[in-house]
Amino acid sequence: MRDETLRLAAELVRRLHSQGMTVSTAESCTGGMAARYLTAVPGASNVFALGVVAYANRIKEQELGVSPDTLARDGAVSEPTAREMADGIRKKAGAFLGLSSTGIAGPGGGTPDTPVGTVYIATRTESGGSCERLVLSGNREEIREETTRRLFRLALAALRV
Amino acid sequence: MRDETLRLAAELVRRLHSQGMTVSTAESCTGGMAARYLTAVPGASNVFALGVVAYANRIKEQELGVSPDTLARDGAVSEPTAREMADGIRKKAGAFLGLSSTGIAGPGGGTPDTPVGTVYIATRTESGGSCERLVLSGNREEIREETTRRLFRLALAALRV
Repeated sequence: MRDETLRLAAELVRRLHSQGMTVSTAESCTGGMAARYLTAVPGASNVFALGVVAYANRIKEQELGVSPDTLARDGAVSEPTAREMADGIRKKAGAFLGLSSTGIAGPGGGTPDTPVGTVYIATRTESGGSCERLVLSGNREEIREETTRRLFRLALAALRV
Repeated sequence: MRDETLRLAAELVRRLHSQGMTVSTAESCTGGMAARYLTAVPGASNVFALGVVAYANRIKEQELGVSPDTLARDGAVSEPTAREMADGIRKKAGAFLGLSSTGIAGPGGGTPDTPVGTVYIATRTESGGSCERLVLSGNREEIREETTRRLFRLALAALRV
């Protein structure tokens, strides 16, 4: 674990708990890393009840309610998919805040339009959401770590609104 | 990440792929760590479609089909719960092999009967399953790491049957 990512996870758990709020995660490219960091924080169970690692498209549909049309039209690595994943997990968990990641961590899977390192991260509450497109460099683990770090920053920003 | 745990994850992905089999994870105390290790392996998507981090009891019921009676009678940290989690995720994912973890990683949450470090891990296929009770020492992260490592060993043993 990286200190900076763990510090952000702990800050997110602390803020959510102090505000009586909860978070849930829907992860594709980060593959459980966000959940793993959040649950590294003692007391995470106060704010975190459910995380889903949705690696396959059928699972994104089945477990997160991502529309088959979205997946067919925009692809799994896209802003609409990231937004639907964050909203889907928020509703499924009954959480205040939904977080999601979907991208190409490599080494395979890149295309000219969506090269390795392309990642979308999203947050969603009942009142609104945000999404960021990242273009990251590094190996598979570095891309996953940086995605997780950016996702926690986006989550903290969502709590400041 | 620890080298030994990653090596076991890679071995599990390789064996499953070579046999055309799939795996799915239902994690409580490891909080996404098993999914995170499996998806650290390039090509994990060939064998891994879904992981669930089920931290709350209501989520163990809702997402994994753990019986409320089991949770009331045996508790969340018990062999019956671990076994039902592994079977529940296997069915939900349509996977060959279901894996689960449930335990007390600490620092809080221990009781005289179930002290910190008490963990149950389980595997389940259509034809059978296994469960181990672990009594681990160390801090929260060490307990989670050792649980993940033992879970992968149990999974590899299940493939040898």
